[in-house]
Amino acid sequence: MMPQRGVSGGVSVAVSEPRSPLAPEPPEHMPAVPGVRLATAAAGMKYQDRDDVLLAVFDEGTHVAGVLTGSRTASAPVEWCREVLAPGTARGLVVNAGNANAFTGMRGREAARATANAAAAAIGVPTESVLLASTGVIGEPLDPGTFTHLLDDMARAASAGGWAEAAAAIMTTDTFPKYAARQTEIGGVPITLNGIAKGSGMIAPDMATMLSFLFTDAPLSPAVLSTLLSEANATTFNAITVDGDTSTSDTVLFFATGKADVEGGLIEAPGDERLTAFRETLHDIMRDLAHQIVRDGEGATKFVTIDVTGAESGDAAKVVAMAIANSPLVKTAIAGEDANWGRVVMAVGKAGEAADRDRLAIWFGPHRVAVEGMRDPDYDEDSVSAYMKTPDIAIRADLGIGDGAFTVWTCDLTYGYISINADYRS
Amino acid sequence: MMPQRGVSGGVSVAVSEPRSPLAPEPPEHMPAVPGVRLATAAAGMKYQDRDDVLLAVFDEGTHVAGVLTGSRTASAPVEWCREVLAPGTARGLVVNAGNANAFTGMRGREAARATANAAAAAIGVPTESVLLASTGVIGEPLDPGTFTHLLDDMARAASAGGWAEAAAAIMTTDTFPKYAARQTEIGGVPITLNGIAKGSGMIAPDMATMLSFLFTDAPLSPAVLSTLLSEANATTFNAITVDGDTSTSDTVLFFATGKADVEGGLIEAPGDERLTAFRETLHDIMRDLAHQIVRDGEGATKFVTIDVTGAESGDAAKVVAMAIANSPLVKTAIAGEDANWGRVVMAVGKAGEAADRDRLAIWFGPHRVAVEGMRDPDYDEDSVSAYMKTPDIAIRADLGIGDGAFTVWTCDLTYGYISINADYRS
Repeated sequence: MMPQRGVSGGVSVAVSEPRSPLAPEPPEHMPAVPGVRLATAAAGMKYQDRDDVLLAVFDEGTHVAGVLTGSRTASAPVEWCREVLAPGTARGLVVNAGNANAFTGMRGREAARATANAAAAAIGVPTESVLLASTGVIGEPLDPGTFTHLLDDMARAASAGGWAEAAAAIMTTDTFPKYAARQTEIGGVPITLNGIAKGSGMIAPDMATMLSFLFTDAPLSPAVLSTLLSEANATTFNAITVDGDTSTSDTVLFFATGKADVEGGLIEAPGDERLTAFRETLHDIMRDLAHQIVRDGEGATKFVTIDVTGAESGDAAKVVAMAIANSPLVKTAIAGEDANWGRVVMAVGKAGEAADRDRLAIWFGPHRVAVEGMRDPDYDEDSVSAYMKTPDIAIRADLGIGDGAFTVWTCDLTYGYISINADYRS
Repeated sequence: MMPQRGVSGGVSVAVSEPRSPLAPEPPEHMPAVPGVRLATAAAGMKYQDRDDVLLAVFDEGTHVAGVLTGSRTASAPVEWCREVLAPGTARGLVVNAGNANAFTGMRGREAARATANAAAAAIGVPTESVLLASTGVIGEPLDPGTFTHLLDDMARAASAGGWAEAAAAIMTTDTFPKYAARQTEIGGVPITLNGIAKGSGMIAPDMATMLSFLFTDAPLSPAVLSTLLSEANATTFNAITVDGDTSTSDTVLFFATGKADVEGGLIEAPGDERLTAFRETLHDIMRDLAHQIVRDGEGATKFVTIDVTGAESGDAAKVVAMAIANSPLVKTAIAGEDANWGRVVMAVGKAGEAADRDRLAIWFGPHRVAVEGMRDPDYDEDSVSAYMKTPDIAIRADLGIGDGAFTVWTCDLTYGYISINADYRS
């Protein structure tokens, strides 16, 4: 049996070393989200000397919507969420780091239900109102007994603070905790929107998993939450890639407690005009968290923005942008600080979307390096080389075909990636 | 201007160091293919002290079929081949290494035509009967003057031997020349089938290109050649991947001189029963050359066979097999000699084809490591670990859904790949 640990008293923000060189400054202040209480604890399931379980407790009336992995081999917690998300209400969330409870068969399903049962009993709510997420090793049976005994104490200890600790407790080999906060308004009433995320650190012998949880006091119906989340997800979490691999456990959940005193109460129409600012803010915080994930990409030394413009459609632009972002040849060139536009041409060509070699133009930052099917005669190699040495690299490919545009964020492919993913056994 | 070089007198099989640890023994003997003559020369376009131009001369009556890159940003030589392949006749082939003549605009098209013109004049045949392929740097204008002055001498010097030299002349950063020969029969008449190939060495600042040329004395119509080539290509060259990237220049050409004295002359029906052995032999030599390309994958230390069985269809099996083969997480695990079946599960899941977690089984070599949605309770970690240390690794995933099967070959992802593709500027 694993050693049993109590609820941690102090802050325990364990991070893998070394911290990503691309890590941003953490937020100075995380406000409380009325109706949300958090607790973390150390179960020692895999990690020592750090918290690895998060419990979030929500007041009655909290709504939820989610986006779950499209993987055909989804984990048991993902299947659990799929089952209980439909009514759109939530009273609890349990996240554990160290074991993903994926590819664990019938026992995995039982472990998920046992976790939800224990959390529901601890909070005093129905089992189906508890959402779950797990990240860590896959294929290893998860014994929920390693942490369910902690849930009673956690439910009692849960408080309005502890956001940094919550972000740290869900990390696997992330090198820094990822969290953000925004203030916005709905109908003139101040609204808080907080978020935490983890990824794309790797946990051997496993794949990167992306988790994110968003919390607001806005009074939004499940349908509104779902619409806003899907909209924003399309151009934030679904617009990042580290290595093109998709986890069995990717989960984004969006909770709204409805504590903010907006006139008329619950907003039930996604098209409500009062949501304009909130919509933008949600987009902004999700993009912030998505960027933090990329900035913690395994072995990353460059944060890379890929803009594709002039495509036949937005969908086509995304396919081309992802082809560039996932190309090992493009990613290694960026790692080598080489403005290798030939590889960008190759990636555009292999994407399979409409492209006309003779209309293609490519920029590295402000420098146009190729135009009309040829090397730009005016491009200055020294300026471009200097640009490639900066940590944030922007590549733009204009296809010259239509109006479709899409932006994807990724990182470079370095020895560090190989080291993290191949060398841990040696 | 580049230094001008003459036709090389001796053998000049330049290879990059170090030779791939996966390189096979070269064929002991390459027979002549009646109706085919070869010459190589050193133009010094990029490489020094080695041949970098190949001229193949075909007797009248030679037929040809080809498979060309699906890239939307195809090179000028690929476009040239597309234009002149239709009649299905060929008298010459020019291949140069060092400059791919890709993304070179109108000048690139003019350079391709000038090359074909010069070769046609040297051989004394129509321009449209000359096929072209180029591999090397992209985006750099190709000056055909660097090698067209050599073609007269090459046409005169062309002889029935020199297959190893031909294979070496088309290399870029390949670490060994790739060639193979087979003997077969049609209607009891002996038939020769030779092939050469290059890839997937990288030429900075460029992407890997795959070229292969096949030569036989069988009397086959262009339609028969085209059918046989497409059939065999689907499960050989189209079933390998090194990094999932597709070149602007990938080209496979299949030449048949018709010199073999088969009763009844030209075979015009792809379904002709006399082609059974030839079909199998073509498949075999193309698989051999495809494997040689994978064995020279950049930084490769493992030759990896991915078998997917039990898929909904053959197409679905290929999608899943390619998802496994192209997964950086699977490839780095193999480099680390880690039987990480969790990553295989992940890749199956992300492929998007029908899969049922609870029916999935995974083998590393003879060792079943996962079955029915869980770790195989009987699997012996020590045996699997020992297996993972061998240079040839077979992974099988049975989806348990249907009868679809497909096999893909790939290599691992190592520091060497990063070094070749990122470090050349440092």
